Amino acid sequence: MTHLFNDPAAFTEDMLAGFLDANSDYVTGVPGGVVRAQETPQGKVAVVVGGGSGHYPAFCGIVGRGFADGAVVGNIFTSPSAQEAYTVAKAATGDAGVLILSGNYAGDVLNFTSAAQRLTSEGTQARVLFVTDDLASAPDTETERRRGVAGDFVVFRVAGAAAEAGYDLDAVEKAASRANDRTRTLGVAFSGCTLPGARTPLFTVPEGRMGVGLGIHGEPGVSEADMPSASELATRLVDGVLAERPADGSGRIAVILNGLGTTKYEELFVVWATVSRLLAGRGLTVVEPEVGELVTSLDMAGVSLTVTFLDEELESLWRAPADTPAYRKGPARLAQKEGGSRRRSPAAQGGSSIEAAQIPPATTAARQAAAAVVAGLSSMRTALIDSADELGRIDAVAGDGDHGRGMVKGVTAAVEAATGLAERGAGVSTVLIGAGDAWAAKAGGTSGALWGAGMREAGAHLSDTASDITAEDVSGALRRGLNTIVAIGKAAPGDKTLLDAALPFADALETAIGRGTDLWTAWDEAAAVAHTAALATADLVPKTGRARPLAARSIGTPDAGATSYALCVRSVLSVRTKEHAE
Amino acid sequence: MTHLFNDPAAFTEDMLAGFLDANSDYVTGVPGGVVRAQETPQGKVAVVVGGGSGHYPAFCGIVGRGFADGAVVGNIFTSPSAQEAYTVAKAATGDAGVLILSGNYAGDVLNFTSAAQRLTSEGTQARVLFVTDDLASAPDTETERRRGVAGDFVVFRVAGAAAEAGYDLDAVEKAASRANDRTRTLGVAFSGCTLPGARTPLFTVPEGRMGVGLGIHGEPGVSEADMPSASELATRLVDGVLAERPADGSGRIAVILNGLGTTKYEELFVVWATVSRLLAGRGLTVVEPEVGELVTSLDMAGVSLTVTFLDEELESLWRAPADTPAYRKGPARLAQKEGGSRRRSPAAQGGSSIEAAQIPPATTAARQAAAAVVAGLSSMRTALIDSADELGRIDAVAGDGDHGRGMVKGVTAAVEAATGLAERGAGVSTVLIGAGDAWAAKAGGTSGALWGAGMREAGAHLSDTASDITAEDVSGALRRGLNTIVAIGKAAPGDKTLLDAALPFADALETAIGRGTDLWTAWDEAAAVAHTAALATADLVPKTGRARPLAARSIGTPDAGATSYALCVRSVLSVRTKEHAE
Repeated sequence: MTHLFNDPAAFTEDMLAGFLDANSDYVTGVPGGVVRAQETPQGKVAVVVGGGSGHYPAFCGIVGRGFADGAVVGNIFTSPSAQEAYTVAKAATGDAGVLILSGNYAGDVLNFTSAAQRLTSEGTQARVLFVTDDLASAPDTETERRRGVAGDFVVFRVAGAAAEAGYDLDAVEKAASRANDRTRTLGVAFSGCTLPGARTPLFTVPEGRMGVGLGIHGEPGVSEADMPSASELATRLVDGVLAERPADGSGRIAVILNGLGTTKYEELFVVWATVSRLLAGRGLTVVEPEVGELVTSLDMAGVSLTVTFLDEELESLWRAPADTPAYRKGPARLAQKEGGSRRRSPAAQGGSSIEAAQIPPATTAARQAAAAVVAGLSSMRTALIDSADELGRIDAVAGDGDHGRGMVKGVTAAVEAATGLAERGAGVSTVLIGAGDAWAAKAGGTSGALWGAGMREAGAHLSDTASDITAEDVSGALRRGLNTIVAIGKAAPGDKTLLDAALPFADALETAIGRGTDLWTAWDEAAAVAHTAALATADLVPKTGRARPLAARSIGTPDAGATSYALCVRSVLSVRTKEHAE
Repeated sequence: MTHLFNDPAAFTEDMLAGFLDANSDYVTGVPGGVVRAQETPQGKVAVVVGGGSGHYPAFCGIVGRGFADGAVVGNIFTSPSAQEAYTVAKAATGDAGVLILSGNYAGDVLNFTSAAQRLTSEGTQARVLFVTDDLASAPDTETERRRGVAGDFVVFRVAGAAAEAGYDLDAVEKAASRANDRTRTLGVAFSGCTLPGARTPLFTVPEGRMGVGLGIHGEPGVSEADMPSASELATRLVDGVLAERPADGSGRIAVILNGLGTTKYEELFVVWATVSRLLAGRGLTVVEPEVGELVTSLDMAGVSLTVTFLDEELESLWRAPADTPAYRKGPARLAQKEGGSRRRSPAAQGGSSIEAAQIPPATTAARQAAAAVVAGLSSMRTALIDSADELGRIDAVAGDGDHGRGMVKGVTAAVEAATGLAERGAGVSTVLIGAGDAWAAKAGGTSGALWGAGMREAGAHLSDTASDITAEDVSGALRRGLNTIVAIGKAAPGDKTLLDAALPFADALETAIGRGTDLWTAWDEAAAVAHTAALATADLVPKTGRARPLAARSIGTPDAGATSYALCVRSVLSVRTKEHAE
């Protein structure tokens, strides 16, 4: 149970404010996350880590010397937006480039990649690396589909230590990539975690049982077993991670026995006593083990074991000094005083581009269409708020349960941006672009990135100077937006994503408009098609799709993204009713 | 819920083994606890801390430079024995004396004081200091009755830093004592903690409510309130601790916002954001705050706020470097390499005196009486095992719920020691002394110290060379033991302790024997008196008694110590039945 919060919707902001205040010697806030209190020295590669929050000390707690230069902090269990990743990376990066790392989750991959592309386009060397240590999330023939869990800590640490040691960007990336290749994690859960303000956990484990292969966002395990003794659990975890021991290992390993949140240090030490013995019995030498809470999942009860098969270079990086709010090792604090200069006021950093935008002139038709977009977004917002819990529940079957929450955040930001722009006389193109950017910036997650990019693209296809906006213009813009979603999301029809509602919707809309039906009637027909298609996703078994390894377990449950898509397009129909009433 | 354990009875030993293995750079095990891996340098005062376990990182996690030299580690929520405190302090102490610190609990006070006395008697300067920061546990006119909770951390830290800085024993004690005088804590709990192997928590808090003024051993709070928002809680905690702000304060404070176990860092940071603002609004400057899990209570959900009103010296000690398994600050690690030499094998340290004892010659009568003692202890053991859960439940009403468990540990050790000695031909005196020492050494806690000392004293009053052991000898020995319990425990009749059953028992036994009744008949009569007297403790309201501030809440529940005493004397009657059958 997460007991303490003010407004659950502002939990992450409140948490960050307290974290920054308590650790002001180490860190400074920037829009989207935190960076070190000291400027990154010239010539030093920046290492930026991140992902959703709820994993403390991952990831803001490990910003400091010998570790990260910055952390992008998303909402609980939700990918930060590309804008947030960009702002943090920009603030953290000096003149030697940046490596941005996160666990391998669809939303993080989309948003961090997009941020790196933007930095690159601006002339800053930027690379991305996504950690794939969770051996339960896909077979070893498909490691690129595996999630990142507590192995994040080792890979981020190696990158941070390499950058501190003066490696160039290529070398930092190479070391981190090798650490990722040689890191394996297996975890178990005994009880689920509860989001702030929620009354029930994201998942439950029956009394006397445990979930094997849990995710760190409340994703359930891949199998279930009877609750073992501490020794039995140690054996299971050691056997699991050593099953993928590489042939070329030095026999020296970095090890993390990680508590997920409410499994306490006393219990971890009891398990560690057996883990240590078993590892020694397999001829392995443990180097500076970490037994504690390093990558948590709110108040989940559970444990994971991470092993990194070291070589000489990885061992030296693993042992290097570090000095961060939550992780300190060696004589780092002393050296810090010699380091870079204190940052200037954080207010000077970053900032949103939306408020500063000039409003291009717009025709009456474009402004009327903009008003319809505002009304449509408002209807979507109402519908999404009503359905947020249900969408979260559906999403939790195979994912992290954040879909409803993320959609509400996104649409709320979009409504605010669209309203502000429309009030200042903006046309439909500017309004849609502004709404899409706001959605992506505030929602985070996969759905935020996709909806934001799709709306921006649709807006770019419309014109603020058109004398008329036709039904064909609308369906054409919608199709362009959808194409962008396909291009970014890399999912195929049948992969159990929002495409499985959105593509039938677009097809039906175009067909109806093609035979001369008016826009609202066509939209009504297409919305019905989308609704049916969304329900039918319950029968789908996804075949492709990066970082959706658990989707197979969702057979019988419709896809959350397809469901919310169908809900959104249907809710927009209320605009017609209002127009008729006026 | 505490999920992970092997044998719950061996939880602490298993935990310590894992802790020592994972932190072998820092610490070495000795009988009864841990000491630094490096020898204490000559001229440096030793600081030894301790208490029951279940509070990680308190207390074994803070052994290292700038903090403790050793930690005595009791069973979960149970005071270590005097023997354990002695062994650890002896191993940790060089030539400059030792300050032994713990929270102000009856068992710790008894056992740590006894250990210090033994060290003093051997020529080692030894002092004790008991922390009293918990303002909810007694009014500010009776601070000496207050418990030690998270303020332990500050006081231990000040002592450790002072010793590291080269203070002599007087100065270390003075600084620690001033830190204690100027430290206040207020805590709240949202849910209780569960002992390893138990299926239900030690206490519960109703849904939507919180306990105010909790203890760190599952003692319930002193009042209950509706569950507040994070900001409301911050206000309540700040108002509470600042109510005792001293007039001479510098306006600079050390602050700990402490998570009790399952209240996570994210929540702590949300609360901290408001705490920090409120403290600033009261004109206070926060110096290097700690927001995290420092003194936990297994898996309890809850938070406490600790404030130490600093002066210049306390501030400099609070900020000094430290390097321990769980708490690191400043450039300590570097300096450590220059420090003392690595300890020799821990096997060379400490050890029990019982096994090494020579068996004095004994008469047949003394050996027969010894056999009766062994049989009586075995009967007590069976009865205590059967009643352990119930005794724990009764004890949890006003205490830490460890009474049943502690009694079983103690009597089991006593049976083993007594059996071994009797098999080697020992008489009743030697057997009782050995059994008492074993009880005190293994049980820990208040009851362990009292039962152990009482049995030792009773044994000392009997003779191994007597040709006969009479009923008067038995009742005389029992009275001598009881006098010792009164002297050590400092409780009075009516204080709701075991004395309220033991004194009526001794009186009744003496009266019956005085009128010529045989021993077993007299014992039977007296046991019935003890049973009635134990039940009657339900109506008592304790008036005196150090560190029993919560006993008032137990009105209506009999005292656990009196109940187990009555149970024990009654169970011994089964020896008569067996003797008759033979």
